[in-house]
Amino acid sequence: MKIAILPGDGIGTEIVAEAVKVLKVLDLPLEMETALVGGCAFEAHGHPLPESTLKLAMASDAVLFGAVGDWKYDKLDRPLRPEQAILGLRKNMGLFANFRPAICYEQLVNASSLKPELIAGLDILIIRELTGDIYFGQPRGRRIATDGHFPGAEEAFDTMRYSRPEIERIAHVAFQAAQKRSKRVTSVDKNNVLETSQLWKDVMVEIGKQYPDVELDHMLVDNAAMQLVKAPKKFDVLVTGNMFGDILSDEASMLTGSIGMLPSASLNSRGQGLYEPSHGSAPDIAGKGIANPLATILSAAMMLRFSLNQEAAALRIEAAVKKVLEQGLRTADIYSEGTQKVSTLEMGNAVVRAL
Amino acid sequence: MKIAILPGDGIGTEIVAEAVKVLKVLDLPLEMETALVGGCAFEAHGHPLPESTLKLAMASDAVLFGAVGDWKYDKLDRPLRPEQAILGLRKNMGLFANFRPAICYEQLVNASSLKPELIAGLDILIIRELTGDIYFGQPRGRRIATDGHFPGAEEAFDTMRYSRPEIERIAHVAFQAAQKRSKRVTSVDKNNVLETSQLWKDVMVEIGKQYPDVELDHMLVDNAAMQLVKAPKKFDVLVTGNMFGDILSDEASMLTGSIGMLPSASLNSRGQGLYEPSHGSAPDIAGKGIANPLATILSAAMMLRFSLNQEAAALRIEAAVKKVLEQGLRTADIYSEGTQKVSTLEMGNAVVRAL
Ligand SMILES: CC(C)[C@H](C(=O)O)[C@@H](O)C(=O)O
Ligand SMILES: CC(C)[C@H](C(=O)O)[C@@H](O)C(=O)O
Repeated sequence: MKIAILPGDGIGTEIVAEAVKVLKVLDLPLEMETALVGGCAFEAHGHPLPESTLKLAMASDAVLFGAVGDWKYDKLDRPLRPEQAILGLRKNMGLFANFRPAICYEQLVNASSLKPELIAGLDILIIRELTGDIYFGQPRGRRIATDGHFPGAEEAFDTMRYSRPEIERIAHVAFQAAQKRSKRVTSVDKNNVLETSQLWKDVMVEIGKQYPDVELDHMLVDNAAMQLVKAPKKFDVLVTGNMFGDILSDEASMLTGSIGMLPSASLNSRGQGLYEPSHGSAPDIAGKGIANPLATILSAAMMLRFSLNQEAAALRIEAAVKKVLEQGLRTADIYSEGTQKVSTLEMGNAVVRAL
Repeated sequence: MKIAILPGDGIGTEIVAEAVKVLKVLDLPLEMETALVGGCAFEAHGHPLPESTLKLAMASDAVLFGAVGDWKYDKLDRPLRPEQAILGLRKNMGLFANFRPAICYEQLVNASSLKPELIAGLDILIIRELTGDIYFGQPRGRRIATDGHFPGAEEAFDTMRYSRPEIERIAHVAFQAAQKRSKRVTSVDKNNVLETSQLWKDVMVEIGKQYPDVELDHMLVDNAAMQLVKAPKKFDVLVTGNMFGDILSDEASMLTGSIGMLPSASLNSRGQGLYEPSHGSAPDIAGKGIANPLATILSAAMMLRFSLNQEAAALRIEAAVKKVLEQGLRTADIYSEGTQKVSTLEMGNAVVRAL
């Protein structure tokens, strides 16, 4: 089983090192190869996603990804910025199905902005379509407007689009995920305004008929942004497009108050996947050894489950993470009085011990 | 001063009636004329925005709008659905500048999902561009895909677009609003992915130079959705496009826990405006006399301020609303133990008395 290890920028190297440590003690036949991605790859090779890195990723069963980006690259032309690496990997590997759990751990309830009774026990699975929508839709660019409010003026434009089979395949992913959970799917769109959303909704209804055991409802994206705040526990599986999913999955993660705990998986139709923490590269704390490695370690668990068919090993890691939380160990981001503050390295070691 | 009164559907008639009552006791030369809009207009005239209603709105200095929509119209073709009326009014009247305050009233802090210390004293002004973006961008529709992931498949598409002058005018609105507040603007976009957002950001920076007294920063929309949850009070004026503004303004309103208190204003370049509560038509409680009329009454205050140049009267209404809250009067949506539950009508009467 071949894994590409792409630590990236910022805290990426520190947190991925701990996840690799954890993987190594599992005693599985894992072949790991590391490569540069993001800003560090741009500095070394002139491109955030060098050909060699992409090749390695494509040839692996799974990619374990840290994080990319730093303010110092903000001035680069868009195609050279670190985040293009992640878009390039998604596109080239065809990673259309993004799984973003928003889980509130019992021991971390108080880290949330929300009142404990609203957030305790939260367990939402957001499924975001990841290779379509306005992220990749052509045409896009700048031009002189020939119609609209100001014909003759410079304008910029992007195209939101979804085809029926693109929606069908993510719908199947969502319904099948729901079958393993509470059998409820909320599909989020903006069908009162967008043509794309109307097709999205129509296809969800159609595919839903093949899953009579799963209850499907629909919610407008503005309302979903509200209901997540008002009563997050009413959601179970939430499925939505790339753009709305970007916003809602981050909102939902932050509701838990412990985004440093949340993993993610991005899969293609062959089960190949990219696994990364839900948080970013946090350049402000990079190199200090204080970042929380648990989201990355839990991403490695998702990798074992989804791409490497090692459910038992995944469960072992997840149990080990629960155990270190029970032991009262906390990195700075989730620290509260009465717990023990530990470094990135110490947290990784604690998980290894708990295994 | 001519005002078009468009109560609409659901609780619209009940809440607008109270706002009209309040306006009438102000002893201002207000000429009010009522017309149908939304689902009720569709039933009476076959269209959610009948020609006569649009004419009345266009010929008025301001429109006081209730709410539109009901599940029973969900099956209608999109152009006939109630919400098309609001889109039609925005477009025809050129209402490009939407003001959505998210304010947390001292007495209602506990209604929020958020911990009191995070939300007490919240006072954000969200300025949403309202006539551009993917809401109105042509082309849009359904077709057979000729490229993308599934050439030959049916697809739906929409166009996100912004021209330079469209962004310039909303930028001026935001910077000028900030000058009257804490002199900080956060512009929200998705410039790491969208061409439209890159132009948005470029123009914000350019126009910002004309307002050296205002501090401008930029935030990605996914991060903004998170920061609103994490530390809402860090925001002051937030300016963004139509689509992102739809989502973020609703999220921000719900953070306060008392969306029944939040007004909104939508202005064109001639100062003509449409004023409506931030909440919807709530068909589930329509006709029961329990809806909260305060958001509509506060929208009438915004109308007096922005379109009718009656600042003193606006302040009187706002003070009266504060007073009824201090008196402990609450409609069901904001009721808590120890306060007095009142009906829509009683709340309107209380505001009139407080005036
Ligand atoms: C870095 C950026 C392009 C990316 C996205 O918008 O998809 C990120 O926000 C994410 O959610 O993974
Ligand atoms: C009704 C709908 C078209 C509208 C919008 O999306 O703008 C509403 O959600 C709003 O925010 O006023």
